[in-house]
Amino acid sequence: MRQYLKQDEWRIIEEGFSPDHHKASESIFSLGNGQMGQRANFEEAWSGPTLQGSYIAGVYYPDKTRVGWWKNGYPEYFAKILNSPNWIGIDVNIDGETLDLFKAKKVERFQRILNMQSGVLIRSFEVTLNNGQKLSVKTERFLSMKRPETGVIRYSVTPENDCKIIFTPYIDGDVVNEDSNYEEKFWNILETDASENQASLLSQTKKLDFRVAFAMKAEVTGADSSDVQPVKNENYSGNHISLRATAKKTVTLIKYIGVCSSLNYKNEELINAAKKEASNAELVGFETLLKEQKAHWENIWRLSDIKIKGDVTAQQGIRFNIFHLNQTYTGKDERLNVGPKGFTGEKYGGTTYWDTEAYGIPFFLMTAPQKVVRNLLVYRYKHLQKAIENAKKLGFTNGAALYPMVTINGEECHNEWEITFEEIHRNGAIAFAIYNYIRHTGDTNYLAEYGLEVLIGIARFWSQRATFSQDKKKFVILGVTGPNEYENNVNNNWYTNKIARWCLNYAREALDIVQKNNPGRFDEIVEKVNLDTSTESGVWKSVATNLHLPYNKDEEVFLQQDGYMDKEQITANELSPSIRPINQHWSWDRILRSCFIKQADTLQGVYLFEEEFDTETIRRNFAFYEPRTVHESSLSPCVHTILAARIGNPDKAYEMYLRTSRLDIDDYNHEVHEGLHITSMAGTWMSIVEGFGGKRVYKDGKLRLSPIIPKQWDEYAFRIRFHENDLEVNVTQNEVEVFSHADEVISLVLYGKEIRITPGKSIKEPLNVKYYA
Amino acid sequence: MRQYLKQDEWRIIEEGFSPDHHKASESIFSLGNGQMGQRANFEEAWSGPTLQGSYIAGVYYPDKTRVGWWKNGYPEYFAKILNSPNWIGIDVNIDGETLDLFKAKKVERFQRILNMQSGVLIRSFEVTLNNGQKLSVKTERFLSMKRPETGVIRYSVTPENDCKIIFTPYIDGDVVNEDSNYEEKFWNILETDASENQASLLSQTKKLDFRVAFAMKAEVTGADSSDVQPVKNENYSGNHISLRATAKKTVTLIKYIGVCSSLNYKNEELINAAKKEASNAELVGFETLLKEQKAHWENIWRLSDIKIKGDVTAQQGIRFNIFHLNQTYTGKDERLNVGPKGFTGEKYGGTTYWDTEAYGIPFFLMTAPQKVVRNLLVYRYKHLQKAIENAKKLGFTNGAALYPMVTINGEECHNEWEITFEEIHRNGAIAFAIYNYIRHTGDTNYLAEYGLEVLIGIARFWSQRATFSQDKKKFVILGVTGPNEYENNVNNNWYTNKIARWCLNYAREALDIVQKNNPGRFDEIVEKVNLDTSTESGVWKSVATNLHLPYNKDEEVFLQQDGYMDKEQITANELSPSIRPINQHWSWDRILRSCFIKQADTLQGVYLFEEEFDTETIRRNFAFYEPRTVHESSLSPCVHTILAARIGNPDKAYEMYLRTSRLDIDDYNHEVHEGLHITSMAGTWMSIVEGFGGKRVYKDGKLRLSPIIPKQWDEYAFRIRFHENDLEVNVTQNEVEVFSHADEVISLVLYGKEIRITPGKSIKEPLNVKYYA
Repeated sequence: MRQYLKQDEWRIIEEGFSPDHHKASESIFSLGNGQMGQRANFEEAWSGPTLQGSYIAGVYYPDKTRVGWWKNGYPEYFAKILNSPNWIGIDVNIDGETLDLFKAKKVERFQRILNMQSGVLIRSFEVTLNNGQKLSVKTERFLSMKRPETGVIRYSVTPENDCKIIFTPYIDGDVVNEDSNYEEKFWNILETDASENQASLLSQTKKLDFRVAFAMKAEVTGADSSDVQPVKNENYSGNHISLRATAKKTVTLIKYIGVCSSLNYKNEELINAAKKEASNAELVGFETLLKEQKAHWENIWRLSDIKIKGDVTAQQGIRFNIFHLNQTYTGKDERLNVGPKGFTGEKYGGTTYWDTEAYGIPFFLMTAPQKVVRNLLVYRYKHLQKAIENAKKLGFTNGAALYPMVTINGEECHNEWEITFEEIHRNGAIAFAIYNYIRHTGDTNYLAEYGLEVLIGIARFWSQRATFSQDKKKFVILGVTGPNEYENNVNNNWYTNKIARWCLNYAREALDIVQKNNPGRFDEIVEKVNLDTSTESGVWKSVATNLHLPYNKDEEVFLQQDGYMDKEQITANELSPSIRPINQHWSWDRILRSCFIKQADTLQGVYLFEEEFDTETIRRNFAFYEPRTVHESSLSPCVHTILAARIGNPDKAYEMYLRTSRLDIDDYNHEVHEGLHITSMAGTWMSIVEGFGGKRVYKDGKLRLSPIIPKQWDEYAFRIRFHENDLEVNVTQNEVEVFSHADEVISLVLYGKEIRITPGKSIKEPLNVKYYA
Repeated sequence: MRQYLKQDEWRIIEEGFSPDHHKASESIFSLGNGQMGQRANFEEAWSGPTLQGSYIAGVYYPDKTRVGWWKNGYPEYFAKILNSPNWIGIDVNIDGETLDLFKAKKVERFQRILNMQSGVLIRSFEVTLNNGQKLSVKTERFLSMKRPETGVIRYSVTPENDCKIIFTPYIDGDVVNEDSNYEEKFWNILETDASENQASLLSQTKKLDFRVAFAMKAEVTGADSSDVQPVKNENYSGNHISLRATAKKTVTLIKYIGVCSSLNYKNEELINAAKKEASNAELVGFETLLKEQKAHWENIWRLSDIKIKGDVTAQQGIRFNIFHLNQTYTGKDERLNVGPKGFTGEKYGGTTYWDTEAYGIPFFLMTAPQKVVRNLLVYRYKHLQKAIENAKKLGFTNGAALYPMVTINGEECHNEWEITFEEIHRNGAIAFAIYNYIRHTGDTNYLAEYGLEVLIGIARFWSQRATFSQDKKKFVILGVTGPNEYENNVNNNWYTNKIARWCLNYAREALDIVQKNNPGRFDEIVEKVNLDTSTESGVWKSVATNLHLPYNKDEEVFLQQDGYMDKEQITANELSPSIRPINQHWSWDRILRSCFIKQADTLQGVYLFEEEFDTETIRRNFAFYEPRTVHESSLSPCVHTILAARIGNPDKAYEMYLRTSRLDIDDYNHEVHEGLHITSMAGTWMSIVEGFGGKRVYKDGKLRLSPIIPKQWDEYAFRIRFHENDLEVNVTQNEVEVFSHADEVISLVLYGKEIRITPGKSIKEPLNVKYYA
């Protein structure tokens, strides 16, 4: 953990200048607008440690580097998110010295603020240069949510004394990825252009020929006159803007940027489109753009804010998570998905993981219009043929589908065998998301339209992947990696087997539903996927019924995998803090053979299928696995929060809530400099709504709430959508109030009791902390 | 399998021109002399499929390419053997057309011969060019065994008609590795020089600054006159030698080459040293060099030949193996070791594996002077500190040593976790080699001098690596990869646990021996390695005694690992030939979860510790594991040969013998184009001597022989060394004759009966095929 940021309900605040914190802050203060993103790199020169990062949604690189023995079935490439040309750069030269805080004589009153209410990054400082000049600087920047191809920076300098200032706003195509081998460059720069107060650059990615155009307009105020010289070379374009500044008088440069990619334009239109974006932005002007930005965020917060009273730490945490989720994914472009690091770092390649289904969808189901989740489901439906091809590469037949672990276009694009080939539980998450969507929306038609085909492909996969053990007289699933990636190539991972069984059963159920509701479409699908109705679902049933689920009789717990009890049974609190996180201190083999669990695994299954288990069973499993879990995956603590709340342990739930909500702000796992954990932020939201709020939808399709409240909070409030209706839930230490924004009477189950709320009204119930406990 | 070569007792013969076979032949016809090696690439231009390969012993490249999630404890680099500058090249131009068999109009009477008796590669063909010219060509080349820095090529051309010929003998530094990413080049060329009939080139490896100098002298005969033009550029040097050739008259170019590396010279001496080598070679002349070569090989064959009468297939196979072993490793340079592919390909990086101890040492123990094996043992002793550092990186303490899986200088230099971190059985092979050396030589002093320290480090490793399972109430070794690399991260691999137990016991035995024989040295070692004599060996004993060794009661066999019986039990002969080898057809996960065994694993342990088991036990384990073994490691069939012979199954032994001895010639695993399986060639030798010959040395230190003979053979004969004494064994279908070359009376156990042989005499016994059966 590293806590250097100030706590505030609406803002992330860094005070005081520390180069050691800079890379972490670059991540934490990142900006995005669903279409592009930018780490909080400085505009002016910075020679200290940094991870330069500017990212364009959907633009990636297929890396074919090979190491070690190549395995049959590996994908041709793995996808890398690209650090794109740098459009934020503004060099500042004062009387011949380049402003660079890393080299300056003295930096005072440094402050960096991420205003989450309005989506603006603000920085201010006073600096004394080595040449003796002293300046106050203030910068503001944002990526317009309303105009996703526009970025804007207002850079103000107030010198203590008269001086000569040269601003050089520029666009620089000479960038690298930190993770590139041999310093390989991923971009060709096709065209650069510069004229007075404007510049542009057209870039092209190597291999896949994505194109991105950047255009800039610069505007200076506060100086009597300035001399402007366009500058460019083959990778770079910009302007030298020289001016005489007067003591104590502020000069301001505003840089308007347009960024357009070939995902949305024809190649030949790109440069003009970007120029038009920049010009429009200049025309509208900084203040108006800022007003738009505030209005846009106000609307987001109105619908998705969670308010916590009496606990600034917790309040800041949840808003940080909601803020970044909304910066990353807006649901507008069905070709996009939610990368685990969003636009905040290179790791995980900006690609799609099971995170989307397991974490993102529960969040969007409750906060976004139904069509957003439907789009995310259809995204996978469109990849079904590629999932079938992927399974084929691994030897499966008859239309069995294995969705990729990591993908950008439906193809698998990661090549570590223990993940690519073995982390097959992702297939379960994708099937479960369909079920989850339907139980939250009632949109059963989705099965006939898209869902059933996916479910058949997945059921076929599991029925082939399970093999029969003569020794156990059971079906077994050998050689997998479960959600807990601190185990590889294990046999009968409980979670994997559990969700496999569920998939097999749900596919049969879905067959029945579609056959009953939509016999014509049913016949069409049967023909399309060549389903043998006389045998296939019988095989699924037999595998599901006879699938081995490991259990430990001594501890009376579901057993994470065969042989888990052979490990030395130690708990995480016995480990010295000096070796945490273990993945930064232990070699891989040591991690693998330890009992330590990276993230909820058996408990992930207990969470998903909670209604099957009584509270005592959940409690026993939680008591066994929680102490063995090191939460070195960001996806872990939220599930533990929810289960801790479920078994009446609000203190543990609160501890885990802080961990998930402040994972990045407080850098629990010493890795925030690499980027933020975007997908787990949805888990933070679930921690409150499903954890403290006790929100559930079981098989019966009813909305349930059973709120508790941590003792640290005075009250908290959240909004949820259910069947496209909006509800507001407010929980105090004494009572629960549910207000309905719906147009019709809403039924729900509060503490196990059916209630009905009329439109525009609320009901109140006393808090019942004993309901589960 | 692919059989396109002619069978012959002393030669490998390819007849008829087929570009499809060329890459395979490039491997099979490779030449080497212990210090450098060369694939059988053509001298003249070749635009068809090829793997250019020229290798210098000890010269490598530390590749730092990274892919996927970097694991803690990975080495900084992995070592790559380098394709070095091409010194064999001779371009041939006839009346303006470049000779290139891939493009020529017609190629006839093509023949390529590897003469194993004399160590010479000969090629001849008739070619019709597109310009109508017709030529006969003959080339001969060898790497001098006597002068390991000399190579020589005689290239003769006989045109059908008068024509103009330009020979361009050259040295080319513009080479790549086939396995390089981004076509990265590994060499800098520092200097090129060319003058009349000579040329030179000085090259330097990137990163590690190895330097290698090449010098050439060219000599033309058979032409009335020639015009010689030196040519060079920054990566290349050579000569254009133009001449008028007369119909039916042979012109010959002889190219003498000197190759000197910075392993043996100061940088500033290199070029001159190489030039001197080339000049000396020219001075001595081709015919004399050839005579030296023949004499050298005659001597090698006198000492190490195995003769098989009545079976050319088998005879060619064993000689091919003995020939390549002697080309790869001569035992002269203690810095070198035996790479799995020798000088015949890039794979496995020319580095040292457990192959050396498990296969190489048994071979050299019986064929080479004692000091050769001692050198190989001392090689590991010198790496002990690095093995301790390596173990430390993985979290072990107190001087525990884990030798690297792959190394070139004692550091681990491979980075796939399942191999690097988990294939820890290599530690066992290194300890066992010490024991093996001592029981074959009687040199118990080796323990005090070097062996004990290594054994202590290894015992410390195992005692820490085993952990106690409360569930089993036994020590267990979790998360390993056994010799069978078609399983990763398994628990309680029987072979690994068995050899771990043996190491722990042998270390205690070694402590006692040294303490008794050499108490002064004992105290010195105790102090040096900080051994706690009151507790450590007690811990070793306790772990050894209580170590879990999996066993299957139904089949009454040692169980390869925990959970092995959960797999679908299929035998290899149920697999369609179209999917063999499975590693070229199945994805890795499918291989991992199948029951198929890449190479002897449990049976490797049965082989090593054979004297502990009765014949029935060996037979049961063989009957269980043999059908499940796909022999996709070259190290596998030899062990199966030995055990099949041991249990009285000569037919299976013969089948496996052919497989090991002709693995490359007949390309059983469809991969010979990548290079030859050099280390397994020692296993071929063991197949005959330990398999058919029944040679053993058990704990009592006595030499045992119990020969059988395959029905396909009339007779066979081999030589072995034991305690530095030479014996010759001749086996016919009726009797066994053992002849002694020793100076003293030799005792040995023949078919269980002690016999004595006086110097220069032999004894004969009737063949006893029933001895084991």
